[in-house]
Amino acid sequence: MGKGRVEAFTDGVVAIIITIMVLDLKVPEGEDFSALLPQWPVFLCYVLSFINVGIYWNNLHNMFHTVQRVDGRVLWANLHLLFWLSLMPVTTAFMGENHFAAVPVAVYGFDLVMCATAYSILVIALHRQHGPDTAFAKAIGRDRKGRISLAVYIAAVGLTFLDRWIGVALYVAVALIWLVPDTRFARVIEK
Amino acid sequence: MGKGRVEAFTDGVVAIIITIMVLDLKVPEGEDFSALLPQWPVFLCYVLSFINVGIYWNNLHNMFHTVQRVDGRVLWANLHLLFWLSLMPVTTAFMGENHFAAVPVAVYGFDLVMCATAYSILVIALHRQHGPDTAFAKAIGRDRKGRISLAVYIAAVGLTFLDRWIGVALYVAVALIWLVPDTRFARVIEK
Amino acid sequence: MGKGRVEAFTDGVVAIIITIMVLDLKVPEGEDFSALLPQWPVFLCYVLSFINVGIYWNNLHNMFHTVQRVDGRVLWANLHLLFWLSLMPVTTAFMGENHFAAVPVAVYGFDLVMCATAYSILVIALHRQHGPDTAFAKAIGRDRKGRISLAVYIAAVGLTFLDRWIGVALYVAVALIWLVPDTRFARVIEK
Amino acid sequence: MGKGRVEAFTDGVVAIIITIMVLDLKVPEGEDFSALLPQWPVFLCYVLSFINVGIYWNNLHNMFHTVQRVDGRVLWANLHLLFWLSLMPVTTAFMGENHFAAVPVAVYGFDLVMCATAYSILVIALHRQHGPDTAFAKAIGRDRKGRISLAVYIAAVGLTFLDRWIGVALYVAVALIWLVPDTRFARVIEK
Repeated sequence: MGKGRVEAFTDGVVAIIITIMVLDLKVPEGEDFSALLPQWPVFLCYVLSFINVGIYWNNLHNMFHTVQRVDGRVLWANLHLLFWLSLMPVTTAFMGENHFAAVPVAVYGFDLVMCATAYSILVIALHRQHGPDTAFAKAIGRDRKGRISLAVYIAAVGLTFLDRWIGVALYVAVALIWLVPDTRFARVIEK
Repeated sequence: MGKGRVEAFTDGVVAIIITIMVLDLKVPEGEDFSALLPQWPVFLCYVLSFINVGIYWNNLHNMFHTVQRVDGRVLWANLHLLFWLSLMPVTTAFMGENHFAAVPVAVYGFDLVMCATAYSILVIALHRQHGPDTAFAKAIGRDRKGRISLAVYIAAVGLTFLDRWIGVALYVAVALIWLVPDTRFARVIEK
Repeated sequence: MGKGRVEAFTDGVVAIIITIMVLDLKVPEGEDFSALLPQWPVFLCYVLSFINVGIYWNNLHNMFHTVQRVDGRVLWANLHLLFWLSLMPVTTAFMGENHFAAVPVAVYGFDLVMCATAYSILVIALHRQHGPDTAFAKAIGRDRKGRISLAVYIAAVGLTFLDRWIGVALYVAVALIWLVPDTRFARVIEK
Repeated sequence: MGKGRVEAFTDGVVAIIITIMVLDLKVPEGEDFSALLPQWPVFLCYVLSFINVGIYWNNLHNMFHTVQRVDGRVLWANLHLLFWLSLMPVTTAFMGENHFAAVPVAVYGFDLVMCATAYSILVIALHRQHGPDTAFAKAIGRDRKGRISLAVYIAAVGLTFLDRWIGVALYVAVALIWLVPDTRFARVIEK
């Protein structure tokens, strides 16, 4: 089965997810600057989720680039990842509208955990189809960064109930690791 | 007429349908776990519909793969299928928000019946254009699985008024037949 | 300038328009059949608009098929058509939610007039770029059907204030001319 | 890295943004012409934003046409531009629903400033990757029009607090410079 349509469909879904989040940015009521103030937590959440979804698209882009073909298992692993990504607009709004309260922050983190898990499953499904000596296997390596992200997300969800800002800080930290891949910080983690 | 743009357009519409459903997942009001509780029926419906739409995309993907060209009749048969699929977000929300009450469950089932009917019409239109000895005709076979699904859906809508959970159980059962195509259960049904 | 991306962008916008209309189908409040009743005018409008947008997509599909390249003028003529098409979800909902009252029916018709006008402008822009002896010019002919549709739409908007059902009937009639292109009725009009 | 998927993803996001704005055109309440009246500022804003987003799509289309490949830096510069474009539906609605009050007009202008800045950053990132002697570098030239637009937008935001209509007029003026590139006015500015 060709990979072209899977890529196109994935691009479509991710493009919609990343744009739909803006619908949760309610039009401010009132016409002066004070009307914008209650919007800032939602806006910050939107920025964070935009970057997170952008990272996933970037990674999927690079990953499928080295892939030759997809089977039914890969297709559903990919749909599974898209499922958890498609929940991002609603978990983002839940966290933003409640001004980073503990439970919404944990729910947002749970969604990140499930996205990272689904991503790992997709990597495994592609590994199984392509074998150890292919361009795909070499490019993805041991996916250390992916597994570290997953571990940090799980820790973050738990630590949220200690202090919710630890959770938020860890979500931002993981985003930065992927966003700034050439800095020394990211390289150290990679090693 | 080339099939490329029909595939691209179909992918686009399906990608939007599958993502738009999340808009019916209202952002929970309140910031503790009890705020999430009233959302679970909507969430379960979302999961079911995500899988159903995913199955249709998967099937359309495979079917158009063996097709060489499309005529006006196929194009409208495809749009007809997309029409009933595009109603899935609203029938899903109707079922979820009413916590699986009988009429909404039947309405959801009616939409599934119409999707399955539209899919059969599309298969017939492609058969008519391609003839019996083509790759398409061999791949689709007698479309037994499609016709069984349609029959089960019709029965499910009727049985909903006896016990609504029979309807829901049958919808889930059909989804599993398509989702897990390699299990013995599915093979038995195929035979 | 290549036509590929213009086609892809057009497909994307049309796919979104056709799917977004469903968002105006409010989830019925209540859980029995009587809850569905107030929805029927909106539903019928949705069916009509789905077919109308489907016809435009079909025509754009066929038209761009015979086109070799596009210039800036064509690009903006195409965006102009997409603009009026993108208003279809809101004019559709306006007509449906007011149960086919005269003014909303006329507003819907005005949108159809503008779509048909924009389509004619696009045809002219492509004519100008391609010249009279190209495949495009031969395929589109004198665009009699397009011009008849435009005339009927203009008449329909006016007649709506006499009897709103005349307007609705004429909108449906034009849709049928395009939808059933092989019937004798359509052929007679073509002649 | 190939540019095909970046183009497709960009087209998808822009198509969604341009269509999603219509969701902010609320269905008028009431069924006569007076119901349409309060909608006109929102409608005018929608027209302006449709043209602005159309211009960006047009420019991205032409720019990527001369580009051979993209790196991670370009990819994120592009996502950064899409981020500010994705805020256009909400800033448009904010300006329209407040009938062009000063602060919303300034906020809309701020979004335009950020879009123009992001566009310049994207141009710089592509310059850096392609070098001075490529088709891209020759086509984009010194991007005078882009830098003039940015300067006018910044001035417009400031002047809005003097008189909000100056801001609006300058937004419209910049749109016209790009929309009507063949008029003498645009040529003079180019020179």
